[in-house]
Amino acid sequence: MRKDFGAKTWLYPMPVLIVAAYDKEGVPCCMNAAWGGIYDTDQVMVCLADDHKTTKNILESGAFTVNIADAAHVVAADYVGIVSGNDEPEKMEKAGLSVLPSAYVKAPVICEFPMAVECELLKFNEDGICIGRIVNVSADESVLGEDGRIDPTLLQAITYDPVHHGYFKLGERVGQAFSDGRKLK
Amino acid sequence: MRKDFGAKTWLYPMPVLIVAAYDKEGVPCCMNAAWGGIYDTDQVMVCLADDHKTTKNILESGAFTVNIADAAHVVAADYVGIVSGNDEPEKMEKAGLSVLPSAYVKAPVICEFPMAVECELLKFNEDGICIGRIVNVSADESVLGEDGRIDPTLLQAITYDPVHHGYFKLGERVGQAFSDGRKLK
Repeated sequence: MRKDFGAKTWLYPMPVLIVAAYDKEGVPCCMNAAWGGIYDTDQVMVCLADDHKTTKNILESGAFTVNIADAAHVVAADYVGIVSGNDEPEKMEKAGLSVLPSAYVKAPVICEFPMAVECELLKFNEDGICIGRIVNVSADESVLGEDGRIDPTLLQAITYDPVHHGYFKLGERVGQAFSDGRKLK
Repeated sequence: MRKDFGAKTWLYPMPVLIVAAYDKEGVPCCMNAAWGGIYDTDQVMVCLADDHKTTKNILESGAFTVNIADAAHVVAADYVGIVSGNDEPEKMEKAGLSVLPSAYVKAPVICEFPMAVECELLKFNEDGICIGRIVNVSADESVLGEDGRIDPTLLQAITYDPVHHGYFKLGERVGQAFSDGRKLK
């Protein structure tokens, strides 16, 4: 039996994307975006309300980073989702977050998060959704496996539970793509 | 130290969305979409190439469902991502998937996946991305907690690892949103 919940903005997994940009003076700010994902090849989308400090910063600077929140920094990731940079000028410091400039785009990479997707602003599309062109993906060496690539079990990315407003981390590997499927029957 | 990987279409978590629709004759088909997510309030987006059977079906029927792939059906979820409904008329059967019609939209709900987001097609937007308006979310009773709501630990949703093309399931709860953040400092 199925239970109906009506029109809910629910999906699993929903990401915890920490979107960061510089303001005109080069001061970094960031926010937590749960509505977003890959939009197309080399493109990400994030749904950002107009009144966010970070939205204004992206429009002015033409660039942003999408930092992947991890289990070690769940409190900081949540904090930057509930406190506005419009009200709290020391938001980054209070969250315990520091930044380094991206070498590829005019946007800050947040040091504490282990992976960043560094983007040029492509546009805010017809629906006001922020679309970025991915210029570089960077990751901290601490989350790289023996093959030198990102290892999800080391990355410890978190995901947002829209039903109970909780955070979960990604768990164990359960299968390989493009391999077993054709053997189904 | 950080390592740069260049322009990669990577994000964590990426979903495993099984998009399903009926053709003109009412025959269901489905496909695996890793590029998608919540677009805006009550709206989902999925990036679907034009030549997919499911893309054609959505354009004709004006509706689709987004079924959340779970750990118990990882092989079926992968299969419907590598075999095209254009080539395999018995794709659903070969994947071991059965459907029931949604009570809300003219689209099939896949019985084996424990949660479905049932959508009317809003449009293919200026970038060709498929945007759906969520009309109903349904979930199997087996994944509901004692509070009658979806429990992520029972849902066992999976996520796609774009680096090694693997599937991971969601893991343990690591925090609560909107609560601890303000206590940071």
